[in-house]
Amino acid sequence: MATRLSRTESYSLLALSLACFGILANTLQGEGEPLIASIAFSGLAFSFCYALIRWLGNAFMHRGFKGKDLCKLKQTEIPETMGAVCAMVYLSIIVVFIPWPFYKDIVAATSGGGNRDVMKEIEQVETGRLLHRFPHNKLASYLSAILSLQCIVLLGIGDDLFDIRWRHKVFIPAIAAIPMLIVYFVDFGVTQMVVPTPLRPYLGELLDIGWLYYVYMALLSIFSSNSINILAGINGIEVAQSLVIALLIVFNDCLYLFVTPYPHPATDSHLFSLYLLLPFIGVSLALLMHNWYPAKVFVGDTYCYFAGMVFAVDGILGHFSKTLILLLLPQGFNFIYSAPQLFHLVPCPRHRLPHLNPRTGLLECSRAEFKKPLTRPIAESLKLLHRLRMLDVEVDKEGTVVSCSNFTIINLWLVWFGPMREDQLALGLLGFQTAVGLMGLFIRHRMALLVFTQDNL
Amino acid sequence: MATRLSRTESYSLLALSLACFGILANTLQGEGEPLIASIAFSGLAFSFCYALIRWLGNAFMHRGFKGKDLCKLKQTEIPETMGAVCAMVYLSIIVVFIPWPFYKDIVAATSGGGNRDVMKEIEQVETGRLLHRFPHNKLASYLSAILSLQCIVLLGIGDDLFDIRWRHKVFIPAIAAIPMLIVYFVDFGVTQMVVPTPLRPYLGELLDIGWLYYVYMALLSIFSSNSINILAGINGIEVAQSLVIALLIVFNDCLYLFVTPYPHPATDSHLFSLYLLLPFIGVSLALLMHNWYPAKVFVGDTYCYFAGMVFAVDGILGHFSKTLILLLLPQGFNFIYSAPQLFHLVPCPRHRLPHLNPRTGLLECSRAEFKKPLTRPIAESLKLLHRLRMLDVEVDKEGTVVSCSNFTIINLWLVWFGPMREDQLALGLLGFQTAVGLMGLFIRHRMALLVFTQDNL
Repeated sequence: MATRLSRTESYSLLALSLACFGILANTLQGEGEPLIASIAFSGLAFSFCYALIRWLGNAFMHRGFKGKDLCKLKQTEIPETMGAVCAMVYLSIIVVFIPWPFYKDIVAATSGGGNRDVMKEIEQVETGRLLHRFPHNKLASYLSAILSLQCIVLLGIGDDLFDIRWRHKVFIPAIAAIPMLIVYFVDFGVTQMVVPTPLRPYLGELLDIGWLYYVYMALLSIFSSNSINILAGINGIEVAQSLVIALLIVFNDCLYLFVTPYPHPATDSHLFSLYLLLPFIGVSLALLMHNWYPAKVFVGDTYCYFAGMVFAVDGILGHFSKTLILLLLPQGFNFIYSAPQLFHLVPCPRHRLPHLNPRTGLLECSRAEFKKPLTRPIAESLKLLHRLRMLDVEVDKEGTVVSCSNFTIINLWLVWFGPMREDQLALGLLGFQTAVGLMGLFIRHRMALLVFTQDNL
Repeated sequence: MATRLSRTESYSLLALSLACFGILANTLQGEGEPLIASIAFSGLAFSFCYALIRWLGNAFMHRGFKGKDLCKLKQTEIPETMGAVCAMVYLSIIVVFIPWPFYKDIVAATSGGGNRDVMKEIEQVETGRLLHRFPHNKLASYLSAILSLQCIVLLGIGDDLFDIRWRHKVFIPAIAAIPMLIVYFVDFGVTQMVVPTPLRPYLGELLDIGWLYYVYMALLSIFSSNSINILAGINGIEVAQSLVIALLIVFNDCLYLFVTPYPHPATDSHLFSLYLLLPFIGVSLALLMHNWYPAKVFVGDTYCYFAGMVFAVDGILGHFSKTLILLLLPQGFNFIYSAPQLFHLVPCPRHRLPHLNPRTGLLECSRAEFKKPLTRPIAESLKLLHRLRMLDVEVDKEGTVVSCSNFTIINLWLVWFGPMREDQLALGLLGFQTAVGLMGLFIRHRMALLVFTQDNL
């Protein structure tokens, strides 16, 4: 892999960075304009991440973070775990961004008019800004988000270093969610859920589910992170699916921010969501440009955990966790579809990624071969799935099931549409995911009135 | 190295953990008693850290985190970077501890009397605890401390993985301090310093040093972390010196908490300091028991940065940064004493740790040999230092300086007191450090009146 930036790349990244710095300097003249600043920071995040992935590739390979691409004819080693670089750039950007959303409040706390040097009174000085109506709670929730994200990066790097066992690493996101949950407990402690209209006669308008609410948040983190980690195996799919989810959430946020005519009560939480997501889109784009077919770097588990945690934190602290679940439907389907192999009802080979046909250069679905005959109910279920076109089952002359395609949505796509090139496969899946996500959002906003008294849009 | 706990160790750690869990459960009956809870958490931190260092040693060696002990006859490889385990345990404990200091406030925000299930009013519920006088600012400063500590651990692991160059890694603590500084900026923004009495006619009572205050805080982080990293080289010295500093700060905190007769205005910030330090003492003790002569693990740069950052965060957010500098005097002296070699005025060999005499089994001071003759002013300065007993200089027949002992406090100790065993050397230095520290605290509290109008004790 090239470890230097080409001249074009250098100049483009430099120009982008300078433009972003210019925009940032401008925001400080006015009221901070946090959304504009966030966009500028995302541009910086993209540039830094793009350059660092290039520069650090060799250092990572030297330290043993490398792997071979099994879906290529020529299997050269390329750097692994580059998602950690992404995550570090993201964390730095998101920390440096902290003052912007609070710029107006900081100016209000000083003598105003941007003249920050002259404080009004000594007593005010000694107590800091406590006497002012500074939105400490917003700050605390922003900090708790960063804490949880830092935590997942630490644990993710630990996993990439030491190859933690599958049944242990499922819980990594739950551990990383602890900082957020604890700050949530200490600072807000709201554990009520709005009850759907049909159930109100029995449960009332709001149902306090108490500690179960924390379990729900932890489970959402586990689901969000692991579902992205499971839908993996071909170039670019981990990053691109995360980008699709991020863009759909941004689209949903924009509906609240720009379509509703008056300042909406949910404006703040959707701004918060944008502040977290825009830099994520920046670093992910930079990573995708290196990870798209043919991949020059791998992303590592760190990236999948990190991306999933960004969504979980965003959904929980932005108060749209149910919408988030809608957007994770393809990942959820992939998990349920994978379950028979994950829980070893059906034999599971070590790798389930598609198989490269060296003659055609196209990917074909990979298969699980059954050396021992399957039990009758399982064999019959597989045959049923085959008839439903949800699996490709191979049967010998006596009617015994010999092999079947592996239980992942990626292989299913190949069963449906036949062998294809790796990037076409990725594009197909991403198109499917986008369509499902847009439909989910449509349903969420059009049909919400059927189960709740009002849509909160 | 043994990778399992002996039966005695297992039972002792288990008993300690159970006792600590018992104490924690008890604190929830009353008002939370955060100090007692913190002590119990420190016990847990010790147990977890002790066990994990044992269990993870092999995994670290497999992943290339290993090194040879140059001060031993038999140079077997032992695990390196075990400070990262310490730091991770510390971070988990400190996160889980968050609710305790706020327990009283959480209970006050609900219906009181510990009955947390029944909230008073729906409106209150929807706004969370915002309407109550919840100490959000305390929470924010606690969270910013954790952010900075997580950040230094991430960067420290990066350094241990990729061997960042010396002139870059000096600044690692400053980068890690950014989260704390930004939260400080956003949430408090107090940049005034109390002016010493003699200077008041010129500068006034309080001097606003503006952005220089942030530079001061960043420099303190750099100094605190790197000074511990420089005073290193013999078994146990990094951890033990950190423990001495931590214990001296705890002693100072206790002066404020238990000696002053009435609730002191600084009570809160010194409690905060204890909450951060007690678990640190827990994990450091566990590490020291593995790192003390003869060492079974090495601590790595991560530990030194981490320890230094704990002190910096503690001193800055606990508002006793000047006292902290007093306690770091031996490290400061070691830095100034090292400067001629660090800045290459005098040739600096790759390793400056003491030299093992294989015949006696004792450590002797290591020497820098000068192949090229030194310039006259430098040679004369070295001879002067020799006469002051601050260096051991070897001179040939013509009076040319041939070699001198290396410029570290560890070698100076050997120059003063002759060859000795590694643990005696460490103990001597620690005794010296404790004496200097206690004297520093005495001066700070007895002499403060000479330069300030009042001691704040």
